[in-house]
Amino acid sequence: MSRTPPVRIGVIGAGRIGTHHATALARHTAAAELVAVADVYPEAAHALAEELGVRATSVETMLADDTVEAVAITAGSTAHAELIRRAAAAGKAVFCEKPMAMTLADFDTAIGACEQAAVPLQVGFNRRFADDFTAAHDIVASGGIGTPHLLRSLTRDPGLADPASVPPWTIFTQTLIHDFDTLNWLNPGATAVSVHAFADALVAPGHKHSGLLDTAVVTIRFDNGALATAEASFSAAYGYDVRGEVFGSAGMVTIGSPAPLTMQHWTASGAARRTERSDTDLMHRAYVGELAAFCRSVRERTMPTVGGADARAAFEIALAAIASVEQDRTVSIGEIKDDR
Amino acid sequence: MSRTPPVRIGVIGAGRIGTHHATALARHTAAAELVAVADVYPEAAHALAEELGVRATSVETMLADDTVEAVAITAGSTAHAELIRRAAAAGKAVFCEKPMAMTLADFDTAIGACEQAAVPLQVGFNRRFADDFTAAHDIVASGGIGTPHLLRSLTRDPGLADPASVPPWTIFTQTLIHDFDTLNWLNPGATAVSVHAFADALVAPGHKHSGLLDTAVVTIRFDNGALATAEASFSAAYGYDVRGEVFGSAGMVTIGSPAPLTMQHWTASGAARRTERSDTDLMHRAYVGELAAFCRSVRERTMPTVGGADARAAFEIALAAIASVEQDRTVSIGEIKDDR
Amino acid sequence: MSRTPPVRIGVIGAGRIGTHHATALARHTAAAELVAVADVYPEAAHALAEELGVRATSVETMLADDTVEAVAITAGSTAHAELIRRAAAAGKAVFCEKPMAMTLADFDTAIGACEQAAVPLQVGFNRRFADDFTAAHDIVASGGIGTPHLLRSLTRDPGLADPASVPPWTIFTQTLIHDFDTLNWLNPGATAVSVHAFADALVAPGHKHSGLLDTAVVTIRFDNGALATAEASFSAAYGYDVRGEVFGSAGMVTIGSPAPLTMQHWTASGAARRTERSDTDLMHRAYVGELAAFCRSVRERTMPTVGGADARAAFEIALAAIASVEQDRTVSIGEIKDDR
Amino acid sequence: MSRTPPVRIGVIGAGRIGTHHATALARHTAAAELVAVADVYPEAAHALAEELGVRATSVETMLADDTVEAVAITAGSTAHAELIRRAAAAGKAVFCEKPMAMTLADFDTAIGACEQAAVPLQVGFNRRFADDFTAAHDIVASGGIGTPHLLRSLTRDPGLADPASVPPWTIFTQTLIHDFDTLNWLNPGATAVSVHAFADALVAPGHKHSGLLDTAVVTIRFDNGALATAEASFSAAYGYDVRGEVFGSAGMVTIGSPAPLTMQHWTASGAARRTERSDTDLMHRAYVGELAAFCRSVRERTMPTVGGADARAAFEIALAAIASVEQDRTVSIGEIKDDR
Repeated sequence: MSRTPPVRIGVIGAGRIGTHHATALARHTAAAELVAVADVYPEAAHALAEELGVRATSVETMLADDTVEAVAITAGSTAHAELIRRAAAAGKAVFCEKPMAMTLADFDTAIGACEQAAVPLQVGFNRRFADDFTAAHDIVASGGIGTPHLLRSLTRDPGLADPASVPPWTIFTQTLIHDFDTLNWLNPGATAVSVHAFADALVAPGHKHSGLLDTAVVTIRFDNGALATAEASFSAAYGYDVRGEVFGSAGMVTIGSPAPLTMQHWTASGAARRTERSDTDLMHRAYVGELAAFCRSVRERTMPTVGGADARAAFEIALAAIASVEQDRTVSIGEIKDDR
Repeated sequence: MSRTPPVRIGVIGAGRIGTHHATALARHTAAAELVAVADVYPEAAHALAEELGVRATSVETMLADDTVEAVAITAGSTAHAELIRRAAAAGKAVFCEKPMAMTLADFDTAIGACEQAAVPLQVGFNRRFADDFTAAHDIVASGGIGTPHLLRSLTRDPGLADPASVPPWTIFTQTLIHDFDTLNWLNPGATAVSVHAFADALVAPGHKHSGLLDTAVVTIRFDNGALATAEASFSAAYGYDVRGEVFGSAGMVTIGSPAPLTMQHWTASGAARRTERSDTDLMHRAYVGELAAFCRSVRERTMPTVGGADARAAFEIALAAIASVEQDRTVSIGEIKDDR
Repeated sequence: MSRTPPVRIGVIGAGRIGTHHATALARHTAAAELVAVADVYPEAAHALAEELGVRATSVETMLADDTVEAVAITAGSTAHAELIRRAAAAGKAVFCEKPMAMTLADFDTAIGACEQAAVPLQVGFNRRFADDFTAAHDIVASGGIGTPHLLRSLTRDPGLADPASVPPWTIFTQTLIHDFDTLNWLNPGATAVSVHAFADALVAPGHKHSGLLDTAVVTIRFDNGALATAEASFSAAYGYDVRGEVFGSAGMVTIGSPAPLTMQHWTASGAARRTERSDTDLMHRAYVGELAAFCRSVRERTMPTVGGADARAAFEIALAAIASVEQDRTVSIGEIKDDR
Repeated sequence: MSRTPPVRIGVIGAGRIGTHHATALARHTAAAELVAVADVYPEAAHALAEELGVRATSVETMLADDTVEAVAITAGSTAHAELIRRAAAAGKAVFCEKPMAMTLADFDTAIGACEQAAVPLQVGFNRRFADDFTAAHDIVASGGIGTPHLLRSLTRDPGLADPASVPPWTIFTQTLIHDFDTLNWLNPGATAVSVHAFADALVAPGHKHSGLLDTAVVTIRFDNGALATAEASFSAAYGYDVRGEVFGSAGMVTIGSPAPLTMQHWTASGAARRTERSDTDLMHRAYVGELAAFCRSVRERTMPTVGGADARAAFEIALAAIASVEQDRTVSIGEIKDDR
């Protein structure tokens, strides 16, 4: 057997996650070959490209380059849908960070473009590639906890650097979108039907007047009866915290810890463990895993395991949570779908 | 120093918890002397009394007996308030299982009777006496996690023996009442302001038509902004599960495990730990602790740390959760108070 | 069924452990009735007796009292064997703290006296009654780890208050004697055959010249081939530490933690748990359990599960470890037996 | 800043670990470029080379190739020292799997050759690059546990496929050599002075007559007084098990778990976690880490953190353990050094 050639990928967006993904593609993903980096700020693209020994380019040039097989989109969220559409039109396979789009109409346009171009579209829900979460999913999917009754997913970021720069509803569309997808995925075959949310600015109350929400609890009823909770905070003093739980008729899985290392330090103060401080530390293997899976999909011409329909389903819950906060009531997913 | 004489206590109610409490008072609580047992079924009282070497009696006789200093009420919930009133009128100190009463009016009558008689009244919220929970509370109360932002409390019973016998709203008034009190206690000085609940019959769906709710998720907004989740199921395949979590501006405490034993068994199947199967196993030390604390209050003439006002506050949340389910909306605690 | 009358017990020795045991018998052991306390220092006996509401007495009077059914011996180790002999001669059931005796000849005399008087003799190896250890033992004894290959038992005391007062070889005869019994018990049916020990004064090196050993590692080969390690220190900064491990052909059990509480505190410093600081905290349930088991043996006229032969077997290992240190070589148990 | 060119490496040895290392260098180590694979069985080299898209070659050719900067030696242990000597003579930087050599004379020859050629020499002690172990080492080295008093290191392999093929003393020279190095490393600045070992064939007793030892416990006294235990088995039913512990005057670190994943599965049987089944799974990050560190040493012309002197020190303990088993006595390291 001869060696499978790596997938030639360009990265669009050279910010924090773009830098992580480009580096992961260049250095930790054998199935990928990073070939170019683009950014609306050319200097950012150049710096990252030079660091990784690839070329900086424009999106236009990247999409026009026939040797580029795929793109990873890590640009600003509002640009995602249009970039997907253009990449699909250029015949590139697409990996896009969450949220894939910011309106349901944009979701449909972007998904349709990929379908029409017959290119794979994968969305960056990294928990689907984290060892702990996938082990739990395997158990749930194979009936190891019976029928899901109660689910929980939470995300707590390690700190809120600049509250003034946070766009409205970020906690739902950028943060809890991960949890909404996780809950959908861990409740296989079920669909959300009702959503309720409480949210507030507790981390930075001074920014509440300008619309900041930094703490939220969302409850979801699914069509199989299961009840789920998604919870987020923008400031966990102890680090980055991503956990999950699925409780069913025959058992439970619990997932995750902000202190994954087994090392413990015992002193006169008690027993201490180190916590992880960033998503790119805690989820590094998951990030690398999702990129490797994307390359496999491209090379083997299979559908990504997490695509546009999944991203749209998670976004519907985000919209329902927003409506719940705005109107202080339970909101049905049906209303959201009808209201698009 | 001479020995403090034990508190002479009668137990009213010889059911499952009454049997546990009477046994704990007789055998594991040095500060108590069990002197009598009463029950509406005299044969139940006789069997338990004989087992423990004390006398079976009627409530009337017990309350008329001047050598009885205190009573522990573990009768049916609907009888609690009236029994408290009579015991207080007879000058007995009162320990009452939760829920202390079934209407806000009955709460007020019972609390008023104890105040007028100047007898201590303690309610059976056992988590307040569990080592893990009290250690967490000490940390929260001393500022160890900063200001609470997100709380969680859950109760999962190990099985639902007879769904047909479960009175309506039991999951809120009997089960989650523990969690409501725990959340109030772990958010010191704060008061619940809004409540939302999702609930269903997922364990025994065939009994939903007769009003069974066996699975519930309640979210609560407090007046300090904190958002809390209380969660219950009537059937945890793996045993009895009581846990808590308080996340705040400076950190978090996590509390409880259904597998508290440190022993692990490692085989070709992986690593296994034993789970506890009943409240009286998992919470045994907490049950004994609450009875010992009650005896101290009686002997030292101090106020119990968990009394009628706490029980009423938890019950208000239960009523709001019921209203939320009935009306499918967020309910404010103010409505409940006004509606009594 | 009528109530089983409690066993009437006198405690001989009002020191730290005597105080704990007398209190446990009086207040936490329903099957026992503490009736008297004796000590070579009458004032110590009086203080403890008054605290617990029983009478202080002499050993002579206690043994002559026909209403006393049993004694718990917690006096100085060198007095144990003779006290056992006298108690047995007086027809009392005997619970004796470890070490049961200080020479093999004394073991044999004391064991013989109890056999001749047909009174039960139980030795205070508390780990045999600790929940974690008994759960592990049940698994090992039922074949859950196959044949034992490697064992470990350790004891680390929380601090060394007065190094000058420690008698020679204490670490083997008083501390590791627990571990030697634990290893024997967790390797059912096997017998120690060879012993090697390294020991030193690392906690209080200034006392090494007067014979102090405060740190030791003992390895043992059993006749079923299993290899065991026993390890002790007199000063664990983080608290009291008792753990065990049995590894066999089909798996492993791991036992114990100095931080048994499930509560965790998460802050900017990481995740922290509280450790236990004393044997009477960490092992409280085990201590109460061993006294309750002793009462059952007395009342039901059954052999204690841990008796004189077990204590002698553990002491043989202690003697071999001492010889190993003295002679810097592997010592066979056969030499010890022959040398008595 | 421009990109640092990767280190061009050839792998000598295409067996199990050679395949792992070659793959790690080719696919997971950005700082390395795998250029060639050699093996005494050319077909093994060809298969691996083709899989990884590099060339198969002979050792001679590889060493004569000026574009090869470094070699990773994963051939049979008895060939290591001579291969190191030849590679050093050819000016290649050397990474060598443990054990680096099989006699002290060979250690000295190989170390001297690297010194003379001024090439870096790193030995494959992977625990020095495992996250848990390095976090513990950092704490120990910075005084976080005070002065080490008691240490433990253990290795348990998941199974013994072919007992007949195991060379004599393998458990000491191939398996426990890891633990000897770990103990030296975790007791910074200290040197082993006395060694005692018990060993047996408990996994495959039928092979004991031909010299198999599959289970061993080694105790070591260091010159700072610390006492250490190293323990190994060739057959852990539950998977691959590597753990460590350092206990000192101010605290303790505990390291490792065969069930590192945080996911737990709770069912009617209790709580279960998955265990890891191979060294290349459990230690994957450590293996990649050691190769990356080697590349940094080559590129930055720094001394590897674990070199020939460390490997020799660990091997001295292995030789002392062998002598202890052969002669059934405590053996001083001085005897080993004198006896070379």
